[in-house]
Amino acid sequence: MPTKSRPIQVVLVGGSGYAGFEAIRWLMRHPKAELLGVFGPEGELGPMDEFYPLLTAQTGLRQELFEPQKIARLGADLAMLCVPHKVAMSYVPALREAGLRVIDWSADYRLHDRQTYEKWYCPHTDAEGLAEAVYGLPEYYAESIRSADLVANPGCYPTCSVLPLAPVLRAGLIQPHGIVVNAISGISGAGRAPALKFHFPECNENFEPYGVGNHRHMPEIEQALTDITGKEVTVLFQPHLCPMDRGMLCTIYADPVGEVRPQQLTQLLQAQYAEAPFVRVRTDVLPATKYTAYTNFCDVGAAVAKGKVILFSTLDNLIKGASGQAIQNMNLMFGLDETTGLY
Amino acid sequence: MPTKSRPIQVVLVGGSGYAGFEAIRWLMRHPKAELLGVFGPEGELGPMDEFYPLLTAQTGLRQELFEPQKIARLGADLAMLCVPHKVAMSYVPALREAGLRVIDWSADYRLHDRQTYEKWYCPHTDAEGLAEAVYGLPEYYAESIRSADLVANPGCYPTCSVLPLAPVLRAGLIQPHGIVVNAISGISGAGRAPALKFHFPECNENFEPYGVGNHRHMPEIEQALTDITGKEVTVLFQPHLCPMDRGMLCTIYADPVGEVRPQQLTQLLQAQYAEAPFVRVRTDVLPATKYTAYTNFCDVGAAVAKGKVILFSTLDNLIKGASGQAIQNMNLMFGLDETTGLY
Amino acid sequence: MPTKSRPIQVVLVGGSGYAGFEAIRWLMRHPKAELLGVFGPEGELGPMDEFYPLLTAQTGLRQELFEPQKIARLGADLAMLCVPHKVAMSYVPALREAGLRVIDWSADYRLHDRQTYEKWYCPHTDAEGLAEAVYGLPEYYAESIRSADLVANPGCYPTCSVLPLAPVLRAGLIQPHGIVVNAISGISGAGRAPALKFHFPECNENFEPYGVGNHRHMPEIEQALTDITGKEVTVLFQPHLCPMDRGMLCTIYADPVGEVRPQQLTQLLQAQYAEAPFVRVRTDVLPATKYTAYTNFCDVGAAVAKGKVILFSTLDNLIKGASGQAIQNMNLMFGLDETTGLY
Amino acid sequence: MPTKSRPIQVVLVGGSGYAGFEAIRWLMRHPKAELLGVFGPEGELGPMDEFYPLLTAQTGLRQELFEPQKIARLGADLAMLCVPHKVAMSYVPALREAGLRVIDWSADYRLHDRQTYEKWYCPHTDAEGLAEAVYGLPEYYAESIRSADLVANPGCYPTCSVLPLAPVLRAGLIQPHGIVVNAISGISGAGRAPALKFHFPECNENFEPYGVGNHRHMPEIEQALTDITGKEVTVLFQPHLCPMDRGMLCTIYADPVGEVRPQQLTQLLQAQYAEAPFVRVRTDVLPATKYTAYTNFCDVGAAVAKGKVILFSTLDNLIKGASGQAIQNMNLMFGLDETTGLY
Repeated sequence: MPTKSRPIQVVLVGGSGYAGFEAIRWLMRHPKAELLGVFGPEGELGPMDEFYPLLTAQTGLRQELFEPQKIARLGADLAMLCVPHKVAMSYVPALREAGLRVIDWSADYRLHDRQTYEKWYCPHTDAEGLAEAVYGLPEYYAESIRSADLVANPGCYPTCSVLPLAPVLRAGLIQPHGIVVNAISGISGAGRAPALKFHFPECNENFEPYGVGNHRHMPEIEQALTDITGKEVTVLFQPHLCPMDRGMLCTIYADPVGEVRPQQLTQLLQAQYAEAPFVRVRTDVLPATKYTAYTNFCDVGAAVAKGKVILFSTLDNLIKGASGQAIQNMNLMFGLDETTGLY
Repeated sequence: MPTKSRPIQVVLVGGSGYAGFEAIRWLMRHPKAELLGVFGPEGELGPMDEFYPLLTAQTGLRQELFEPQKIARLGADLAMLCVPHKVAMSYVPALREAGLRVIDWSADYRLHDRQTYEKWYCPHTDAEGLAEAVYGLPEYYAESIRSADLVANPGCYPTCSVLPLAPVLRAGLIQPHGIVVNAISGISGAGRAPALKFHFPECNENFEPYGVGNHRHMPEIEQALTDITGKEVTVLFQPHLCPMDRGMLCTIYADPVGEVRPQQLTQLLQAQYAEAPFVRVRTDVLPATKYTAYTNFCDVGAAVAKGKVILFSTLDNLIKGASGQAIQNMNLMFGLDETTGLY
Repeated sequence: MPTKSRPIQVVLVGGSGYAGFEAIRWLMRHPKAELLGVFGPEGELGPMDEFYPLLTAQTGLRQELFEPQKIARLGADLAMLCVPHKVAMSYVPALREAGLRVIDWSADYRLHDRQTYEKWYCPHTDAEGLAEAVYGLPEYYAESIRSADLVANPGCYPTCSVLPLAPVLRAGLIQPHGIVVNAISGISGAGRAPALKFHFPECNENFEPYGVGNHRHMPEIEQALTDITGKEVTVLFQPHLCPMDRGMLCTIYADPVGEVRPQQLTQLLQAQYAEAPFVRVRTDVLPATKYTAYTNFCDVGAAVAKGKVILFSTLDNLIKGASGQAIQNMNLMFGLDETTGLY
Repeated sequence: MPTKSRPIQVVLVGGSGYAGFEAIRWLMRHPKAELLGVFGPEGELGPMDEFYPLLTAQTGLRQELFEPQKIARLGADLAMLCVPHKVAMSYVPALREAGLRVIDWSADYRLHDRQTYEKWYCPHTDAEGLAEAVYGLPEYYAESIRSADLVANPGCYPTCSVLPLAPVLRAGLIQPHGIVVNAISGISGAGRAPALKFHFPECNENFEPYGVGNHRHMPEIEQALTDITGKEVTVLFQPHLCPMDRGMLCTIYADPVGEVRPQQLTQLLQAQYAEAPFVRVRTDVLPATKYTAYTNFCDVGAAVAKGKVILFSTLDNLIKGASGQAIQNMNLMFGLDETTGLY
């Protein structure tokens, strides 16, 4: 167990993608955590700075072959898993058996309902983990996260959608059905595997929709909102690719219940997030992705126009949408101030 | 009058912005039109290739001081006006008096209803022009455009919004109220005047909403849709700035009337635009701005998800959203094939 | 043979990359040429607008399997080859045997000296073609191009390097050795095959050198300069990748012979290119890639500073650096004005 | 004076530009420094997060009117000056009189020789400061910086040029004359004042040279190299604008003295910078701007080709080229480890 004098001992599983890279950077800078080792699959082993030359002179770590026993012997407190779904749930049981607490960045433990998971992804092979996993959205689940052994780090789009919507839905100011989340993401959200769609001359100077009606973050958004608000919520989630490295913006349209004034929305958001260190309610300026770039903030804003409630939210998809949120969860799990190492 | 042997004689008023530049390029390439002169306000005079070095060796034209008599003496058939609103309506009457037909790219003659215009812009000073102007959306007003003396070239956002919505609304497949047009535009849509908001390091790697509930293209969209469909239509129009030079995409959400299948929407769009040379109905791929970049096409697509009808549309804001559409209108006004000079 | 009433009949071999796409667009717009068919290798067949959705409604052409006999039966006058080196020389002999003239966009026929070719590329399999091929830089080889049956379309970097350097070298104003060509290119220059290096989040917001001392365009630049000037010329060519779609800029440093004034350089360039429709000598502004984007122009400029002659040149790597130059060559080969279809 | 328990007390003068913004961010995160106040000129006062909405919830600081007495009363140890040249030297004497040590980010104290300064800038009004100022390049002047009261933070281009060149010149491996520094910078290097040249649609998808033979960083580069190596060095410095936010790359060409092997260069650089925490010598990959983006590193690399020595160097123009270097200087001035707060 980490103590005052002993930092949290962390291992990272899956260091070769953008998420792993960000995990390494945040852990290197964290005053109360130490990265013991990085592990990955056959074929992706080697010095971390060969994957990411930016890391040269900052870390001598190598990605070693993933073997639970080896990890167990290191005596780590926590494993961060930055591997794809399906791979994650094949690694998690052994890590937990070896006594590690786990923050999983994949989708494998996000959807509580096994049938829903299996409808959108694939057969689930770790029912026990699924039953115990806590959804790692600190603004709503901090208590559970503190004592959790397995935290499912939320998706970027769900984080960006749920934070503005949850308070407004819970207060009954908007209808729980017919909500539209029009979202955009920078290209890093698509991962690091080259493909024609993400080839520079194809996606530079281009903006396009994708995943119409079938993006896997849609059920996650609905589950989180339903769980937080106690109401069955349905959301049409429509993502788009935007020609920039990082950044995410949701423009959310909902039908008001009765007459709703913008100030009501703003005050509600301010009240809800008064104690949340990483949610900022914008009133004088509209949220813009660059105001949250390279930070762990999620900015939210609200308006009413033409009979619709409009909510805006932005975050950095690789930080509050992934790595920063994972560190925030780690801080909670190990009794630290939520913001440690995150400014 | 232009004849077989005599090309359309055109003067351009307002050549120093992006719209003027595009007008010059299209007119230079047009096989049946000739650009006689370019005119502008005091303080913006000089060789066109000093404004746009790309034009060097392609045109020796200079922007001369705007004087209606001088223009009249040139014996031109048509004036293209690429000046800001308010300036446009101060120029148009004299040009028409001098015998020129006019295509105005500003907002001054787009809104038929004077009160609506004055609510969104400023006092209108050319009631006669306003009464006679034809809205230059060729897919719906080709007949009127052919004989018009004054054509109001539509806004980029209205063109992109109206083309996908009009047939679906007219067929009664969606509710005429509660429609949301979530739009994005490349930065050239903001014009050529430098400002902090459009300073490269501010808007590069940034995506942001603007004009919440008050963008001036909203009443234009509503007017066009109401006029075309015969139903009172209300639209919530929400634009965003996207870090790219050019391109526009609308993602439109509407409530279906009864059950609507995606094929119905697609077939309807295909039937409506079977004869429209510049509207393409996408079925195998989703519209993406790069498929229409540097062309006069507007691509549209349709889907149904989570109880909503979703329409997508894209165009190049400087071409089908401005210059190309103006040339298309010119072709109609002077009896040419609509596509002349536009491929 | 094409006549007044019969356009040039062209087949394109290799339509799925950026070069092929540009070839199609220019040929579609060309008033005196007709694209009869597109041919490619097994595994890359199908409608052209599936490769390039931008082409929908503009062409119904499909990429068919490359078979020389089939092409011969079409009775085409010219084959444009947009295939990789090595593939090109395996196709060319059969096409020529079938009676077609050929413009090859690969490197296979650019280097006259077989040994040089084989040192930089691979064994050469068409010695006859190599001996007869004409280097398709119209500003210097127009006469030979007119009567050539096989034209080697120059590389983008060589075009951009040779045009500013050749007159200055020939006039003896700079030393023929120790010349440095510092070049940058937009990412489309790297082709359309996805790779990590060209994955958007890797090369966006990034600028980097590559090919130090070993870029294959270096011997091509030296050969062209030596051939044009009659002096043995050596050049250090250093390319860089720039985060933009298209555009190329060379900044060239050379040692003057005696004292050289900037005006001398400018006048020399102006005299050399007085009749060249696509070379513009910049004096009031420095060359910038955007001034040549989407055009067939090459802009050049000259300066003297700190004892060095500096030459600048820009072009669009996909146009004057590839497709536009090929059309310019085609125009010459078939007795048309050099500029036909190129504005 | 700062002690173990008392952080360095800093005031910032000039907080509204990119440099000021970066200064604030680094100071907020620094474990041993505290930002007491921000001061600026009339017309640019107000909360820092109105200038930079990214700072909301991170600082409550306001930019107050610059008055030396007010600053003196705060009891600060250090003033960071992020104001334009000429303004800087009008502020510095009063700050020093008030007992503050100063790090000036402008050019006012960089050129030791008054005549040189006045030739490139304007009349110098603080001869005493100029005489005492230390050039803040820690890799070469750490000793003097430690005890300096006035440090001139180097320019971005000079830092990027001098670090790779100095050891190679000092070792006599290259000629001290005829050196060419071909440099590129992201647009943030041009500052935050909007202008047509930096308007997004003008500089996006554009690459261009500027400042031919007359960039003010040229004499600074020459002075630093001459001072460090003891040889008179002349450099042709040619900058270019690259369409990205941040990042700088120099490609440097020099004539070798005798035969020089690449390994010699690499070993020399490695030996020189073995103890320099922020200079990395690249051997397996070439320097690329993204490897240093958002870090305080300068990466260098070396090659030999076609009889020239080629050096590459990259850094983040806003960090190692400005803010990070200033913090590095501050650390030295106040007895901290050079790297404090900089990872």
